[in-house]
Amino acid sequence: MKHTQEVVEQILRGEVRAAARLMRELDDGLPGAREVLKRLYPHSGRAHIIGITGSPGVGKSTLTDRLIQYLRQEGHTVGVVAVDPTSPFSGGAILGDRIRMQRHALDEGVFIRSLATRGHFGGLTASARAVITVLDAMGKDYILVETVGVGQDEVEIAATAYTTLVVTVPGLGDDIQAIKAGILEVADILVVNKADREGASRTYQDLLQMLDLQSIRKTKSWKPPVFLTQAKDEQGLTELLAGIREHQEYLQQNQGEALRAARYQRVRQEFLELLKEGVFRDLMARLSGNGRLEEILQEILAKKTDPYSACEALVAETLGVTA
Amino acid sequence: MKHTQEVVEQILRGEVRAAARLMRELDDGLPGAREVLKRLYPHSGRAHIIGITGSPGVGKSTLTDRLIQYLRQEGHTVGVVAVDPTSPFSGGAILGDRIRMQRHALDEGVFIRSLATRGHFGGLTASARAVITVLDAMGKDYILVETVGVGQDEVEIAATAYTTLVVTVPGLGDDIQAIKAGILEVADILVVNKADREGASRTYQDLLQMLDLQSIRKTKSWKPPVFLTQAKDEQGLTELLAGIREHQEYLQQNQGEALRAARYQRVRQEFLELLKEGVFRDLMARLSGNGRLEEILQEILAKKTDPYSACEALVAETLGVTA
Repeated sequence: MKHTQEVVEQILRGEVRAAARLMRELDDGLPGAREVLKRLYPHSGRAHIIGITGSPGVGKSTLTDRLIQYLRQEGHTVGVVAVDPTSPFSGGAILGDRIRMQRHALDEGVFIRSLATRGHFGGLTASARAVITVLDAMGKDYILVETVGVGQDEVEIAATAYTTLVVTVPGLGDDIQAIKAGILEVADILVVNKADREGASRTYQDLLQMLDLQSIRKTKSWKPPVFLTQAKDEQGLTELLAGIREHQEYLQQNQGEALRAARYQRVRQEFLELLKEGVFRDLMARLSGNGRLEEILQEILAKKTDPYSACEALVAETLGVTA
Repeated sequence: MKHTQEVVEQILRGEVRAAARLMRELDDGLPGAREVLKRLYPHSGRAHIIGITGSPGVGKSTLTDRLIQYLRQEGHTVGVVAVDPTSPFSGGAILGDRIRMQRHALDEGVFIRSLATRGHFGGLTASARAVITVLDAMGKDYILVETVGVGQDEVEIAATAYTTLVVTVPGLGDDIQAIKAGILEVADILVVNKADREGASRTYQDLLQMLDLQSIRKTKSWKPPVFLTQAKDEQGLTELLAGIREHQEYLQQNQGEALRAARYQRVRQEFLELLKEGVFRDLMARLSGNGRLEEILQEILAKKTDPYSACEALVAETLGVTA
C-alpha cells in the first residue's frame, strides 16, 4: 500500500502530526495503523528509554518535566509516554502536572503522549509499547516513560526501560522491610524527591543499606546510586542527569554487552505481552462465536464443574495435550 | 485421595488452620492444593462479597477495619482479602493499617488474608479469587475485598464483588471530568471518607451530579448512593452499612434477578482470567521447551521480523486459522 509507506516515511522524518494521528488510530484499533507500526519497528531501538516510576504523589511528573527541560537544553530530542491511572481521584493532581508539562507543547523537539489505563488497543501495556516504538522510530534521542508504581503492568513498563528510575519521598522509610517484594528491585537509579522534607537523610541511608543486599538489584554488576532531588526547585537534577549518563555508559561497556542484555529483556517482555493478549483474543472470538463459552459458564453456574477443571480441559483441548 | 477430602471437610467446617495452610499451598503452587480448591468451589457462592477500592491514602484499610467491627457486632462472620501494592513506598501506611486490623486476629469469626502484587500463583487476580472461594466455602457471611484503585486488575477484583464501594476523599473534585474513564463506573456505593476535611460537601455534590449521567453506572436500575464517613472516628458507618444492606436487598428483588446477573458476571470474569493465564502458561511451556521462543526473539532482535507479525503468525499457527 502506497499510503502505508507514506505514513511510515512521514514518521521516520519525525513529523509530529503524522505520529499523533497514528497513535490515535492505534488506539482505535485501525488495522492500517498496525501495518504502519510493523514497518516502523525495524527503525526503532536507537533511543535511550528511561523509565520513571513510584507511588502517586512522589512528584514523578514534575521530575519528568525537569528532565525534559534539561535534556532539551543539551540539544536532545525527547519523547514522553505518561501512563496515568485515570483514577478520578488522582485525576486532579495528574491534570495539574500535565498542564505544567504543556510548556513543552510548543517545542517541536518534545512529543508528549498520555495514556489511560482502560479502553486502549490491546491493553495499556501494548498501547504504551506501541507509542514507544513510534517515538523511537521518529528519532527521539530520549524517551521518558512515566508510570505509577502500583499495579504489575505499570511497574513492568518502566522496568523494561534501559534506565529505570524509582522515585520515593522522605518519611516512608520505617517499614522498609516491606520493600523486598516491591518495586525497588527494578531500579537502576533511586531518587529521593522532595528532599527538603524531614527524614530525607534517614530515607537515603535506609535505601543505601538495602541496596547492599545483592538480591534486590536489577543487574548484578551495577549498584543503583541514590540521588536526593527537589524537582520543583531544580535541586539535584544536574547530579541525577550525570547519574543517568553514567548508567547509559555502563550499558555500553564491553561492546554494549549490558545494553544487549537489556534490549533482549525488552523484546522478550514485549513479545510475551503481545502473545498473551493475542492468543487470548483469538481464543475468545472462537469460543464466543460457537457458543462454547456460554455453555461452560452455565455448567459452572450449575455447579456441574468448577472453573479450574473447566479451564484445564479447555486449554488441553485448544492446544492439544502437551507431551 | 482421602487426604484431599479430609482437607475439604476441615475447611467446610470453617477450620482456620486448614484454610490458612491451603492458602499458603495455593501460593506455592502445590497441585494437591488446586484439587482441594476444585472440590471447594461447588460450596462457594453463599457469601455476600463486598469490594472496597480507591486511590492510596483514602483510608480503605481503616474503613475495612470498621466494617469488620460492625459486621461482627451484628453476629456475622467475616473474611477479608487485602490486595496490597507491596510498593515499598506505600508499605509504611499499609503495614500500619494491617497492625490496626490485628485486633481482629484473636476473633475466630474473622479471617484476614493479605496478598502482594507479585510472585503469586497464576498472578494476583487468580490468587485473590482463590482466597475468596476458600473463605466462601468456609461459610463466611461477608467477604470484604480491599484493593487499591489503580491498575486494571486491582480495580477488576473489587468490581466483580456483589457490592462495590469506591472510596474517595474531599478535595479531589476539581478535575472530576477525568472520572469518565475511571473507576467510578464500577461503584455500587460511593464513600467520601475523611469527610471532616475541607471540600467534603463540594465533592459530595460533584459525585451526585456525575451519577445522574446514566452511562457511568454499573447497573442501570440502581443509582449508587453517596455516603460521607470518617472511618477513624466511626462517623457515618451505620448509614453506610444500611446502604450496603439496601444494595444487598436490591440484588435479591424479583427472585434475585440482579444477584444472578452479578454472579454470572463474576463467574465469567473469573473463568476468563483463568483461561488467559492457563492458555498462556501452557503455550509458554511448549515454546520454551522446543526452542521456538528463542528462535522468534532472535529474529525480532535481528530485525528480520517485528513482534506484531511474529505474534500474529504464532497465534494462527497455535490455534489454527479462524474461519
